[in-house]
Amino acid sequence: MTAPFATLAEFHDVLTGLPGPDDTAAAAARDRDAQLTKPPGALGRLEELAEWYIGWRGDPAARCNSPQILIFAGNHGVTAQGVSAFPAEVTAQMVANFRAGGAAINQLARLAGATLDIHALSLDTPTADFTTGHAMSEADYVAALATGWGAVSPEADLVVTGEMGIGNTTSAAALAAALFGGDAGSWAGRGTGVGDDGLSIKRRVVEAGVSLHGQQGPLGLLQCLGGRELAAMAGAIAGARAHRIPVILDGFICSAAAASLEQAVPGALDHTVAGHLSAEAGHGQILDALGKIPLLQLGMRLGEGSGAALAIQILRGALACHQDMATFAEAGVSDG
Amino acid sequence: MTAPFATLAEFHDVLTGLPGPDDTAAAAARDRDAQLTKPPGALGRLEELAEWYIGWRGDPAARCNSPQILIFAGNHGVTAQGVSAFPAEVTAQMVANFRAGGAAINQLARLAGATLDIHALSLDTPTADFTTGHAMSEADYVAALATGWGAVSPEADLVVTGEMGIGNTTSAAALAAALFGGDAGSWAGRGTGVGDDGLSIKRRVVEAGVSLHGQQGPLGLLQCLGGRELAAMAGAIAGARAHRIPVILDGFICSAAAASLEQAVPGALDHTVAGHLSAEAGHGQILDALGKIPLLQLGMRLGEGSGAALAIQILRGALACHQDMATFAEAGVSDG
Repeated sequence: MTAPFATLAEFHDVLTGLPGPDDTAAAAARDRDAQLTKPPGALGRLEELAEWYIGWRGDPAARCNSPQILIFAGNHGVTAQGVSAFPAEVTAQMVANFRAGGAAINQLARLAGATLDIHALSLDTPTADFTTGHAMSEADYVAALATGWGAVSPEADLVVTGEMGIGNTTSAAALAAALFGGDAGSWAGRGTGVGDDGLSIKRRVVEAGVSLHGQQGPLGLLQCLGGRELAAMAGAIAGARAHRIPVILDGFICSAAAASLEQAVPGALDHTVAGHLSAEAGHGQILDALGKIPLLQLGMRLGEGSGAALAIQILRGALACHQDMATFAEAGVSDG
Repeated sequence: MTAPFATLAEFHDVLTGLPGPDDTAAAAARDRDAQLTKPPGALGRLEELAEWYIGWRGDPAARCNSPQILIFAGNHGVTAQGVSAFPAEVTAQMVANFRAGGAAINQLARLAGATLDIHALSLDTPTADFTTGHAMSEADYVAALATGWGAVSPEADLVVTGEMGIGNTTSAAALAAALFGGDAGSWAGRGTGVGDDGLSIKRRVVEAGVSLHGQQGPLGLLQCLGGRELAAMAGAIAGARAHRIPVILDGFICSAAAASLEQAVPGALDHTVAGHLSAEAGHGQILDALGKIPLLQLGMRLGEGSGAALAIQILRGALACHQDMATFAEAGVSDG
């Protein structure tokens, strides 16, 4: 679908006007849950998940039959400084691997019965080094937001946003540091496995980025520090909401991009849940700040939407129980 | 399959002689993992899970295609004391619900592509009140162990053990208290949702059970305090190992029964993983004592094997990635 914005100011306006949940549908879900053959609360977070999903879909009979996983890939000028354990060429190589079906996300998408769409964003033209200027011009940034917005299929009933981009934990660390404050360098983690020297460089790069751009607003920070794939994820998260499609957030990079939306318009992430807690330093701090409790905590730190894709199964379990369990009356079970 | 024991002493001997993992297959899994198109360690616990599963199956190409969920149901004499929020008739009512397909576990089994077998163990003859005597005679106990052992399908490639039995969190709390020590009453939780008065009774009942039977060995404690469904789960866990079938443990009751095996023969649970952390008080303490980190932490406390059934999806994800991802060489991706 075409994005209903052509400038950053218009994107902000659109973000402000996105729909909220359907409280009637959510109440119907709560009412049904109380009648199912189980002690109240015994399914824990599965009960909350079903209510959340049904509220956002606006349909008490909602199921998650058509999840869509979106992977956005971008390259980062800042990699020239030596912040990653892998060379920048790996971004394009991994895009080819996604398209050939060989990556982790391909296997997890198949397991979840999800469609997987790969969007490579101008890989031959890395974003500018954010320690010396804006990573993206406004036009480039809005184009990336629009790519994400337009990538959402209106027929999907769940969206997972993932990414690939050598150097993008540096970008996300700088963005998180600028959004949430604290010791800038402490937001830098080992990413794909950078060594001690690389980690020292990464910390200095993050500090320099925050120093240069830290006075921007949340959406300006995403422009100045984020890669195109971060902007596209933010656009997709917003675009999904326009269609009342709930979103499962992935790890550190996805969550940093998403946090820009929440700081720009509080509540902008209410249609999202955190799929997992990544092992990447800083992810837990972002989720705490967003008030999101991750569905999975498996020490994953791959990106690609992999943790969120695995969490689709948890949502499916929640909805299967909610929609298909018998009530006390139907089953002839005493309700205590 | 027929159980190779007719007495408790013979069960102990069988437990001592069960097979270990195949170290060669596990090493092959580690070697393959290092070649897959991801940074080392980036799939976190999924990597450990794949290695664990392949080691126990003894097959580097192992997949989990035929999981079997076993639900054992039993009734407890101790319910006459008022330890549960639900009447004892609910055990049989829920067995009927399982057979009709209306319970949570039916939906989660279908989602996991698992077979679901229900074994109701002499529901019309509850076990004896453990505050006044042995819950089971040795013959009754060995019969329950044998039912569990025999319930395992040799063709299954994963087993989940679950239970249903009004009053069985009281039985499990007494068993855990006797196995692990500490303040006996503190092991009693709210189970299906008992109120404050019921919880006080439950604590006294647990204390009385530990006081009467606390000097028994681990397998004796399971006889004296456990219900038939706890004994059957223990038998199934042991029987699965005889066929090199890995097991996903469910919540508090399952873990308490399993812990009897581990205390009787250290290492007896090496072929098991903890599917989830239940919200029931005491489950975390059992898992800590067993050195098991749960795959899921979703605040579930339903029993029925529900948490473990949901965790099947995590194992499936681990194996899908392990078996189907491309290697760096196959995909032409630089490995750093």
